[in-house]
Amino acid sequence: MVGTQTVTQNCSAAGLSSCTFLQLKSVKSVLVLVANLGSTSFKYRLFDMSNGQCLARGAVDRIGEEVSHCEVEIGDWKDERSMSVPDHGLAVSACLEQLTDPDHGALKDASEIVAIGFKAVHGGRLSGVFVVDDDVLAAMTEMNAAAPAHNPPYIAAMKLLRERFPDLPLVAAFETNFHRTIPSSRREYAIPRAWADGLHIRRYGFHGASHRFIAGRVAEVLGRSDARVISCHLGGSSSLTAIVGGESVMTTMGMTPQTGLPQNNRVGDFDPFALPLIIEKTGLTLDEVLGKLASEGGLLGLSDKSGDMRDLELAAANGDEKSQLALDVFVEEVRRHMGGMIVAMGGVDAIVFTGGIGEKGKETRAAIVAGLEELGIVADGEANKKIKGEGSFHAGDSRTELWVIPTNEELVVARQCVELLQETDKSA
Amino acid sequence: MVGTQTVTQNCSAAGLSSCTFLQLKSVKSVLVLVANLGSTSFKYRLFDMSNGQCLARGAVDRIGEEVSHCEVEIGDWKDERSMSVPDHGLAVSACLEQLTDPDHGALKDASEIVAIGFKAVHGGRLSGVFVVDDDVLAAMTEMNAAAPAHNPPYIAAMKLLRERFPDLPLVAAFETNFHRTIPSSRREYAIPRAWADGLHIRRYGFHGASHRFIAGRVAEVLGRSDARVISCHLGGSSSLTAIVGGESVMTTMGMTPQTGLPQNNRVGDFDPFALPLIIEKTGLTLDEVLGKLASEGGLLGLSDKSGDMRDLELAAANGDEKSQLALDVFVEEVRRHMGGMIVAMGGVDAIVFTGGIGEKGKETRAAIVAGLEELGIVADGEANKKIKGEGSFHAGDSRTELWVIPTNEELVVARQCVELLQETDKSA
Repeated sequence: MVGTQTVTQNCSAAGLSSCTFLQLKSVKSVLVLVANLGSTSFKYRLFDMSNGQCLARGAVDRIGEEVSHCEVEIGDWKDERSMSVPDHGLAVSACLEQLTDPDHGALKDASEIVAIGFKAVHGGRLSGVFVVDDDVLAAMTEMNAAAPAHNPPYIAAMKLLRERFPDLPLVAAFETNFHRTIPSSRREYAIPRAWADGLHIRRYGFHGASHRFIAGRVAEVLGRSDARVISCHLGGSSSLTAIVGGESVMTTMGMTPQTGLPQNNRVGDFDPFALPLIIEKTGLTLDEVLGKLASEGGLLGLSDKSGDMRDLELAAANGDEKSQLALDVFVEEVRRHMGGMIVAMGGVDAIVFTGGIGEKGKETRAAIVAGLEELGIVADGEANKKIKGEGSFHAGDSRTELWVIPTNEELVVARQCVELLQETDKSA
Repeated sequence: MVGTQTVTQNCSAAGLSSCTFLQLKSVKSVLVLVANLGSTSFKYRLFDMSNGQCLARGAVDRIGEEVSHCEVEIGDWKDERSMSVPDHGLAVSACLEQLTDPDHGALKDASEIVAIGFKAVHGGRLSGVFVVDDDVLAAMTEMNAAAPAHNPPYIAAMKLLRERFPDLPLVAAFETNFHRTIPSSRREYAIPRAWADGLHIRRYGFHGASHRFIAGRVAEVLGRSDARVISCHLGGSSSLTAIVGGESVMTTMGMTPQTGLPQNNRVGDFDPFALPLIIEKTGLTLDEVLGKLASEGGLLGLSDKSGDMRDLELAAANGDEKSQLALDVFVEEVRRHMGGMIVAMGGVDAIVFTGGIGEKGKETRAAIVAGLEELGIVADGEANKKIKGEGSFHAGDSRTELWVIPTNEELVVARQCVELLQETDKSA
């Protein structure tokens, strides 16, 4: 690889206490590409895991449309290209072309990459970190009905990439993995036992890479590893996770990423026994009703306007009542779930905000922790307004620390890739 | 009416500050029969609402079977009879026969009763207290799909009773009524706006009569009406309600009585997006799956043994792990929802337990409030064990008071009946 500037954080910020484990083979750099897939998008970051540096980040948008958009950022160099990118396999090819740009690229040759890591969503019976093989793809396919917006594009892209790059290990780091420490009393639904045991129907939880990153970083900023923490990942997709001693003990998403908090256009917690009435009155099928709940619900459904918090704040400021309602419901639901976690842990040492809304939505943060002085949670309003990047905003007399910590899910996935390859290497 | 001893509580315990409003017509007594219906059962209480006294209580079981069982308790007199009771209309006739027993009865003649009150469950667009007419029955019928275990037997019985006793006002006091004060930000689901507005899909909340009773009584025992209270109605069917200044501000049940806490055999909160997977793997229809979730879920589903807390405590004590899991899930879910309410109210002045489990389940009560010292909630373990009937069990240094208060839903319904008849009388 060629030398290049770092774009983001290093090992320390990833909650990695040491990088000395990275003596994988005898190469000087350990390059991992981490992919984040949507149905028509491919976002990526390139890490050198010998030191945790992010060498490049980029995205391919509008995959499958006539003209796709490819952009990359390598140090100070930014490159944007328009071209035809019919599928996710070719999106990776386009990305590699930019990454190997002779003048500015981060790579001499694509073969320098040791693995592509995926923040895979739902593997049902499989929850961990795996080299993608037929069984991994089968497990993900079994969960298509549970994660219709997430699993299918990953499965399609993984299949294409296996054909296109047969020598490159693809690694699936499941989002459910961090939540395997949740006790069964907070994991099981009150459903017929045969469905829980036979069909693997239980609360899984998602956003595992983000909550894992926060768990590591908050231990560093607090200077202790035994804290009771609520990690609030708030963005287009949102979830809360209660963390004790670095481990997930409770989370808001359930069997699927559609439950828990309201999302930008997905419903969040909902009463399944309302479905027959909706089906009866609308004439839609169950799949159609669920489809609408997962694409026309959430902040979009509540406001009947937009699923974007910034649009809603603007509209609400201009007097739009439904937009204000959407904002209010979001805050109430975060508070409701936060309260459940505070009681579950018997108190909370730190509340951490991350994700697009968590990092930038200062009004939302303020509303979420408002009026909780009796519980020992006191915000410093001015400090909250001033935060850029990482910072705290609890008042001097707050028993609970309040933090904003930008997440770095991709770095967690890259680390998990390397750990898996190391294990594979050792056992070989 | 004949003079008789009181069976239970008087006006004061019902949270009625005064009974002077009861100068209805010129009769000396105002007799209201309150009915609680199951698909094959009819439980009732007879109140004299001139003074709030319960004159009689009874039940008809196994309606429609070859031999039904009728029992009544009037003062010290208890009477049990076996006879054929083919439907709910004849169940009322059988009840009236016992109530007018020439030697021990509470009535000289059935015509002394001024109304039959029903703790009606779900009226959707109708939420209040109404004389049962065609529109009330239509509104309840519209909600059959949402409350399949509750609405159909009430509708059938009301129709029969209207035919059989055309001169006797039937009054439906909907369980949703107490929750009309919940703000929209805690009431609306994040669903497409057209379904919320057009199909009346929102959180309604139930157990309104019980939570209303607790709201009144807790104000009396605390000596203040502005308290922030969590009313925990825990029994075969369970819900929590947050009450501020006597009004419901949040509750655990939703569009239907199937959501919220796990019930004896109903599921409680569940992820609707798991349904396609269950349907696909079991070959059942949506209605069949929901039917099983509403009859083979809850504590019964979790334990695979029983929906009765006493059975589960015994089995768990004997080492049955699934029974212990069911108990643990129940406690965790109560705590989770309780926490949401504590944050919503910014603290809690009193937590009240009522219902079969709430009043008698001392281990469950202890587990629900355990380890919350940091939040100012401290139980007195010995006091908790000793409570019979009404009593408190908070420690001296607890900021939150902890109470057990036996509920009296039927008295609330009787009061609502009389208020409605008074209004009707005035406007006539």
